[in-house]
Amino acid sequence: MTNAEAAPFRRAQIVGLGLIGSSVALALQRAGWTVTGRDANQARAARALELGVVDALGSDDFAEVAFVATPVTSIPALVKEIFAASKRDDVIVTDVGGVKGRVAGAIDFPRFVGGHPMAGSEQEGPDGADPDLFVGATWVLTPTPATDADAYSLVREIVMGFGADVVALEPARHDALVAVVSHVPHLTAANLMALAADASLEHAALLRLAAGGFRDMTRIAAGEPAIWPDIFRDNAEAVLEVLDALLVRLNTARDLIATENRQGLLDLLEYAKSARRNLPSRVVRPDAITECRIAVTDRPGELAEVTAVLGGIGVNIWDIEIAHSAEGPRGVLVIAISTLDVDAARAALTSRGFRPSMRSLA
Amino acid sequence: MTNAEAAPFRRAQIVGLGLIGSSVALALQRAGWTVTGRDANQARAARALELGVVDALGSDDFAEVAFVATPVTSIPALVKEIFAASKRDDVIVTDVGGVKGRVAGAIDFPRFVGGHPMAGSEQEGPDGADPDLFVGATWVLTPTPATDADAYSLVREIVMGFGADVVALEPARHDALVAVVSHVPHLTAANLMALAADASLEHAALLRLAAGGFRDMTRIAAGEPAIWPDIFRDNAEAVLEVLDALLVRLNTARDLIATENRQGLLDLLEYAKSARRNLPSRVVRPDAITECRIAVTDRPGELAEVTAVLGGIGVNIWDIEIAHSAEGPRGVLVIAISTLDVDAARAALTSRGFRPSMRSLA
Repeated sequence: MTNAEAAPFRRAQIVGLGLIGSSVALALQRAGWTVTGRDANQARAARALELGVVDALGSDDFAEVAFVATPVTSIPALVKEIFAASKRDDVIVTDVGGVKGRVAGAIDFPRFVGGHPMAGSEQEGPDGADPDLFVGATWVLTPTPATDADAYSLVREIVMGFGADVVALEPARHDALVAVVSHVPHLTAANLMALAADASLEHAALLRLAAGGFRDMTRIAAGEPAIWPDIFRDNAEAVLEVLDALLVRLNTARDLIATENRQGLLDLLEYAKSARRNLPSRVVRPDAITECRIAVTDRPGELAEVTAVLGGIGVNIWDIEIAHSAEGPRGVLVIAISTLDVDAARAALTSRGFRPSMRSLA
Repeated sequence: MTNAEAAPFRRAQIVGLGLIGSSVALALQRAGWTVTGRDANQARAARALELGVVDALGSDDFAEVAFVATPVTSIPALVKEIFAASKRDDVIVTDVGGVKGRVAGAIDFPRFVGGHPMAGSEQEGPDGADPDLFVGATWVLTPTPATDADAYSLVREIVMGFGADVVALEPARHDALVAVVSHVPHLTAANLMALAADASLEHAALLRLAAGGFRDMTRIAAGEPAIWPDIFRDNAEAVLEVLDALLVRLNTARDLIATENRQGLLDLLEYAKSARRNLPSRVVRPDAITECRIAVTDRPGELAEVTAVLGGIGVNIWDIEIAHSAEGPRGVLVIAISTLDVDAARAALTSRGFRPSMRSLA
């Protein structure tokens, strides 16, 4: 596997120097990379250089890896442009777009790996950049059957080096899930805040009544609106489905209140309380690790399938390596998982036709 | 005005030793009060005594002030019971219920002052109690035309001593506002969490994708459900009205997404962003204070009207004193406000027939 410390002059490029792109740049620099960056907004690019967020402005056609951190709409064209301009056969491109299905559908380069760091802040641009932004955050990678296994491994290794936990998901599955945990909550927070703003027009005292709960709920509404219309368009199908489910739920809750259905309200609130209290925080590295070896034909599609199967049942992959066969198309995928997950992983993999062999490391 | 330091043996009683009641008890003790408390749950009462949250268990018919910190339904009967049992003519009773209209409608004792501290935590009962829980929190008081001015002043002084900012509102107005900033947001958080829990049944990876925004939005859903059915019943009218307004807003947002109305979405999000960024945090004591003197007939109703008028236009009252006339029914209400609020206060008070005289103190 690659080792950043042993290769201090590795080169990366970033397209898009907003909060995420700039934070990726800082995290790469800290890991020893030389980072070239650009942004369609020249003032922002200049500011990034001034702050030392990037080492140079422009494109680097010799970069080993490129991060595209622009609005979702422009990602496919930029990815194609980078592959076309690169002077390296082995360049790897990844992105940080919040919607993956449309991007994945428009790009079929084996050395493109879709990604989405689930991190952010109310800060903006290079001035808000923070190399620790991704520490403890979940970073989704969305390998497809077209994805090259080594490209996936490298991107995974780099973002884990930022302190992120990696989860592999199919692109469409990612989009359905972020509609639930991000897009519809964001829309709801904005509407709750707008409702309070409407009400406070006739009564200035209102906002002084807003205790911590309301402040927490509406915090994300303080973020920059600019990225959201693209997200809502690109993920419209999933967002509308989840929004409709929320509307059904809220209408049901309305009936419970209107009919004074005490037990129904308690059941709803208990269900939510239990789920909220079980919401996992930062994943802690398990005490006991088991190495899971899976013989695969040396085709990228199998990597995507294995990672998606394990991600789908909530099994975290702590380490991954692809041992290519010296001759022929066979290889071995070596995955480190928690020993507690062995039975679930074996069952899920076996049901998909894989034959995993497990070996406890602790 | 009363002074806690000069009278170290003042006696208070608390009915209901949940998180709020226990925190009030600790804050009172710190201010030098001797606190007797009780709770329908004997184990909880015993725990409060064991922790030193109260000095003694039971009722104190000689207490100067009583805080009723039970579910809203039981407040009117308990308030009447305390007045009936008290051996003092000048006992003052207040409550901390989250809904005020029904309580105010059921109680017409001049020395009862409705209250609602906008504070809480995920902790429960005496074990979660914190004398600093109210520092910087808004504490609503809901004087009515029946409220005695001295009773109001004493309660106001005590809770300001806890570090709270006091806002005076009419009971019905309070209920409409908390529906917007607390009750409907709580219901929405629970439904968002329930939606995510539903979705995660089929995909365990979901909850690991939940970044800070989702965690913030659903934090209040982790609280104890027990108090909420009462709140939703007692404030049903306002909650249903606000919930309907939210449903209208969410349906409008749905249409904006379905029709790819980029500008409409931006307008909504900009409106919410601007409102959220202007959400006032802890009120800072102003640099320049003006004393506002208002001649009133010595009737309690005028106090309620003056405080509600100023609260209604967002003018904070930093100090308040009632100078009773030695002879006849006239008196003077002396109120300290920010010098920046003088013009707004004068206009609002004059429009209600008062004739305020202003004198700058700084």
